[in-house]
Amino acid sequence: MGLLVVGSIALDTVETPFDRIDNALGGSAVYVSLAASYFSGPVYMVGVVGEDFGKEHIALLEDHHVDIEGLQVVNGAKTFRWSGKYHYDLNVRDTLITELNVFESFNPIIPDNYKKARFVLLGNIDPTLQLRVLEQMENPKFVVCDTMNFWIEGKKNELLEVLKKVTVLIINDSEARLLANEPNLIRAARLIRALGPKYLIIKKGEHGALLFGENIVFSAPAYPLENIYDPTGAGDTFAGGFIGYIHKTQDISIENLKRAVVFGSAMASFCVEKFSTKGLENLTYLQVHDRFREFLKLSKFDDED
Amino acid sequence: MGLLVVGSIALDTVETPFDRIDNALGGSAVYVSLAASYFSGPVYMVGVVGEDFGKEHIALLEDHHVDIEGLQVVNGAKTFRWSGKYHYDLNVRDTLITELNVFESFNPIIPDNYKKARFVLLGNIDPTLQLRVLEQMENPKFVVCDTMNFWIEGKKNELLEVLKKVTVLIINDSEARLLANEPNLIRAARLIRALGPKYLIIKKGEHGALLFGENIVFSAPAYPLENIYDPTGAGDTFAGGFIGYIHKTQDISIENLKRAVVFGSAMASFCVEKFSTKGLENLTYLQVHDRFREFLKLSKFDDED
Repeated sequence: MGLLVVGSIALDTVETPFDRIDNALGGSAVYVSLAASYFSGPVYMVGVVGEDFGKEHIALLEDHHVDIEGLQVVNGAKTFRWSGKYHYDLNVRDTLITELNVFESFNPIIPDNYKKARFVLLGNIDPTLQLRVLEQMENPKFVVCDTMNFWIEGKKNELLEVLKKVTVLIINDSEARLLANEPNLIRAARLIRALGPKYLIIKKGEHGALLFGENIVFSAPAYPLENIYDPTGAGDTFAGGFIGYIHKTQDISIENLKRAVVFGSAMASFCVEKFSTKGLENLTYLQVHDRFREFLKLSKFDDED
Repeated sequence: MGLLVVGSIALDTVETPFDRIDNALGGSAVYVSLAASYFSGPVYMVGVVGEDFGKEHIALLEDHHVDIEGLQVVNGAKTFRWSGKYHYDLNVRDTLITELNVFESFNPIIPDNYKKARFVLLGNIDPTLQLRVLEQMENPKFVVCDTMNFWIEGKKNELLEVLKKVTVLIINDSEARLLANEPNLIRAARLIRALGPKYLIIKKGEHGALLFGENIVFSAPAYPLENIYDPTGAGDTFAGGFIGYIHKTQDISIENLKRAVVFGSAMASFCVEKFSTKGLENLTYLQVHDRFREFLKLSKFDDED
């Protein structure tokens, strides 16, 4: 049984201090699916594109065993486009253009073949759509959800409905503070978990990630990268690696969730080393696992004798 | 042979959203010495105070086996005073008052009895004074140095002279970026280590700390504290725990340095739980070691199988 991924599919124009790329493949569903594809197939991707969506992008997804039965292609319309510019400090970016296009009227329709999927990844889209996805699923066992400031501020009630149904919420530190209205992340995590999610992952970019559960906090380091070319998609890639690893192992114990956080971090580190999805296109599982081992070395210390 | 600690001794007035304390014991030499005192004695503290410095502060230091032969008391003058206010987000603080007083003409004189010390902690003071301390030492083996933006910007040349002589530099992330003129911390670390220090520790507050050495990066998590009452002195306390543990074990291997970073982090977590030095006054080594073990749990994950 496959892993269901729902999210945005985009053509991104990205400028960094180093380079610029136009109309490159992007979007949360794409980054999640490519990252998850390294762990186990098939990935069931649900999303929408316009008729301008290149055949080479479809081919890339299919090469990675991403099932595109749930991909809606709208004729006479354009794919969602996003354009952003990163500054010298890559933690700061400006969104230049957001053209919703086909995404504006997106209604996620889950093919019958996908409805039995037990593992579900709700990418960062309107919580109303996330709810509509869950309503179509027969018996999802492990639901991972991403969201952002825009929905926390603009669709709080709908988001709270989603949170009642998710197993793991993945957000970044500023989103956690906003959602909980609490500056201390540890207290914020407790407040957010009380809204529904059994687990909360707080992504902290170059500072790693925190996993919170009942009476447990796990702190994963970030990979020490000297050269970050394009941070676009890092958060989605983290989520894809995280759920991909859990889907592969079918093990939802806390110890395995910790490993999944590290696999997510490893995938994100590959993502940001190249432009657009390039860092996720030609990896081997051996490379992924080697990087996982580097995270072990990075954070391991021993007790005194 | 004792551990030499040189730094500021202050009377701090601190306001946080929770409380306020006036003329409380503070200063880098005090926090370092108290933290280090939990690991091994004696701590040789060198600093200066005015005649207004309370006998109870002296008694507290002596209770912790801090040797104060090197403490200069200037009659007719006042102790260094600092006053600061923390905001709702405790990562943000304003300095309200800095009265240098006796600190303005401080000339660190190392008692003969201290000159053979092999382990030296240069607290955050004028690099000219840090150099003067090192010139008086016979054969320091392991020199740990702290500094800040003020000296990086105002006394760069003198600081560069100090860096040639130190084993470990401990600074925070913004100081590292400023010193290296490089936003990427991994590249910044390489540039700073090329200035002299064999090891560099970058403190990242609530995000933990990074230890850099030849071909090694170690990432230590931060302790997940729900209640931070007063961040004053956390960095100095970290440094004190770090060098105190190394001084105790007399082991400067990289594996032991990693443990020392975690002991430093553990001490800092006790420091911020109470006002002023209160969190460092009545600990037991068992409590310190228990917290070290909590850091192990916090960051440990296993390879597959």
